[in-house]
Amino acid sequence: MLVEKLGEDNLIKSLAERFGGRHSRLLKGIGDDTSVSVQKGASALLVTTDILIENTHFKRGSGSPFLLGRKALSISLSDIAAMGGQPLFFLVSLSLTPGTPKKYIDELYRGMAEVSRESGCALAGGNTAKAGSEMTVSTTVIGETPARRVVYRKGAASGDLVFITGAVGGSALGLKALSSREGLPLKRVPWKESVRRHLDPTPRLEAGQALAKARLATAMMDISDGVALDLKRLCVESGKSAVIYLGALPVSDELKAYGERTGKSPLLDFALTGGEDYELLFTSPEKNLRKIAALSKKLGLPMTPVGRITGRRKNGQTVTVLGEEGEPMELKKLGFEHF
Amino acid sequence: MLVEKLGEDNLIKSLAERFGGRHSRLLKGIGDDTSVSVQKGASALLVTTDILIENTHFKRGSGSPFLLGRKALSISLSDIAAMGGQPLFFLVSLSLTPGTPKKYIDELYRGMAEVSRESGCALAGGNTAKAGSEMTVSTTVIGETPARRVVYRKGAASGDLVFITGAVGGSALGLKALSSREGLPLKRVPWKESVRRHLDPTPRLEAGQALAKARLATAMMDISDGVALDLKRLCVESGKSAVIYLGALPVSDELKAYGERTGKSPLLDFALTGGEDYELLFTSPEKNLRKIAALSKKLGLPMTPVGRITGRRKNGQTVTVLGEEGEPMELKKLGFEHF
Repeated sequence: MLVEKLGEDNLIKSLAERFGGRHSRLLKGIGDDTSVSVQKGASALLVTTDILIENTHFKRGSGSPFLLGRKALSISLSDIAAMGGQPLFFLVSLSLTPGTPKKYIDELYRGMAEVSRESGCALAGGNTAKAGSEMTVSTTVIGETPARRVVYRKGAASGDLVFITGAVGGSALGLKALSSREGLPLKRVPWKESVRRHLDPTPRLEAGQALAKARLATAMMDISDGVALDLKRLCVESGKSAVIYLGALPVSDELKAYGERTGKSPLLDFALTGGEDYELLFTSPEKNLRKIAALSKKLGLPMTPVGRITGRRKNGQTVTVLGEEGEPMELKKLGFEHF
Repeated sequence: MLVEKLGEDNLIKSLAERFGGRHSRLLKGIGDDTSVSVQKGASALLVTTDILIENTHFKRGSGSPFLLGRKALSISLSDIAAMGGQPLFFLVSLSLTPGTPKKYIDELYRGMAEVSRESGCALAGGNTAKAGSEMTVSTTVIGETPARRVVYRKGAASGDLVFITGAVGGSALGLKALSSREGLPLKRVPWKESVRRHLDPTPRLEAGQALAKARLATAMMDISDGVALDLKRLCVESGKSAVIYLGALPVSDELKAYGERTGKSPLLDFALTGGEDYELLFTSPEKNLRKIAALSKKLGLPMTPVGRITGRRKNGQTVTVLGEEGEPMELKKLGFEHF
């Protein structure tokens, strides 16, 4: 069955049914003009919104609607993680081309519902509309955190170390693998772990909350457009400059293997400037190194120092990249920009 | 200049600059991973999200980017109004085709900024992305209201009168006028007041808040997809049935004049089933008639009884439309549905 036969109210209804579980703070979810929820005076409210556009952010022929549903929610959860927050609810706007099969939407909802359960982030509202030629999935996530614990981008201090969770560059390799094999079934696309990282990124909610709670991060953000560009954004908000050590960037075994096979270092084009890793980038004074190592071990998630905040931001370069021999590098681009 | 030359960060920056005013409850707006705001324990939080899609909801050749900016925010404010709420903040996701002129976006922002000032709803966040062939504007508005004063769709009681604010059907006439003169400058499109109602609807914030505060509305929603369809939705949530008196529907002088000129009653195709009026639909016991009349006079906004809640909803028809002679009518469609 195609969505054009379904009716708008039925589409919304099937969304509501898919997400059975209620949230104790949610007084009303789908079925009214707005969501209605309980406020908690001692906490700060966090709100973020993202949009995934067909052919810009995803192709219908690559990946699967199930993974697209997961990703649409996960990337907004990643923003909540980057503030040290706890997700509460989300709303979703779907614009669909009339020829979309109902099964495609069911799978998309199933992916969202799975991440919703994993993260405790309940569905609070949604709407659907007709698109002409490109479908879009727009997600708004509402979260919170004790007011004094919010970790902004602006808190980096001179001398702080710059850390990265997990590994970077995998998502960009996954995208490259998908693009060069467009139309192939997912099973037959190589670099499987990287493809998975691209199609199904993990929001670092636990790490973000733990870093905030232990007051280990002076500034934090998630890496969505590449380490270099996002570190520049963090520096701009903090009024600081920074160096990154290219050779220190944590990369996956698969990305290393790709580098060896092609004979080119994957550090520059993938780890430094590739987008959509959704790892956390944070700064912390050097004295916290041991505590961060202990937290990293406890969570089973690497937290690697990759650079340093060098001082006040002046005219000129905000982020300096030092190559594997310690030489300053000229970059053609810092990361992914839409325009 | 085209957006593709601008850079994503510059697009966001120009959005932030356009909205100078801060909100006392907003700790951080644009420039971080999420917005951060103060929660107020005694109030319920209201969140709503909408999306306007090129060629589905608007045409670039009709209207103006300034009015599109106004409408994108106004339609979400209308949802807050329908809960009796006060808007606080909004976030906006723009997806733009690369050939969009910067001036177009400036005008869109200018329209949003004007409604932002008029309503006291401050910008709290935004993002931009590249679209292939259709631009979209997605808006999320966060509002609140004292927890005991929220007016849901579900509270309608048997015997309650059904009211409508303002006049209905004008937006549908405006859309018809615009569609039949596509490409003409706005000044040369006839039925100007109706065209304005379509391109620049007024969210009934003051009326919604006043009705909620005085506890005059047992159920309330905004009319976005036509009176008949939206009343059906209100009835479904309330578990009730209703009648509408077609002849009682309030219409503008312009819509009356259109009916006279064409020799066809505008009640069925425009007032009853036309979309995008963004007036309020609410129910109230008959004993409140005088108080509602007094409030209507005070606000300078008509509040017209147009029907009645008849009893518990059973299998079969939820909303019965009685024609101008009191005869039950068969409707081909209740209102606007995307799919």
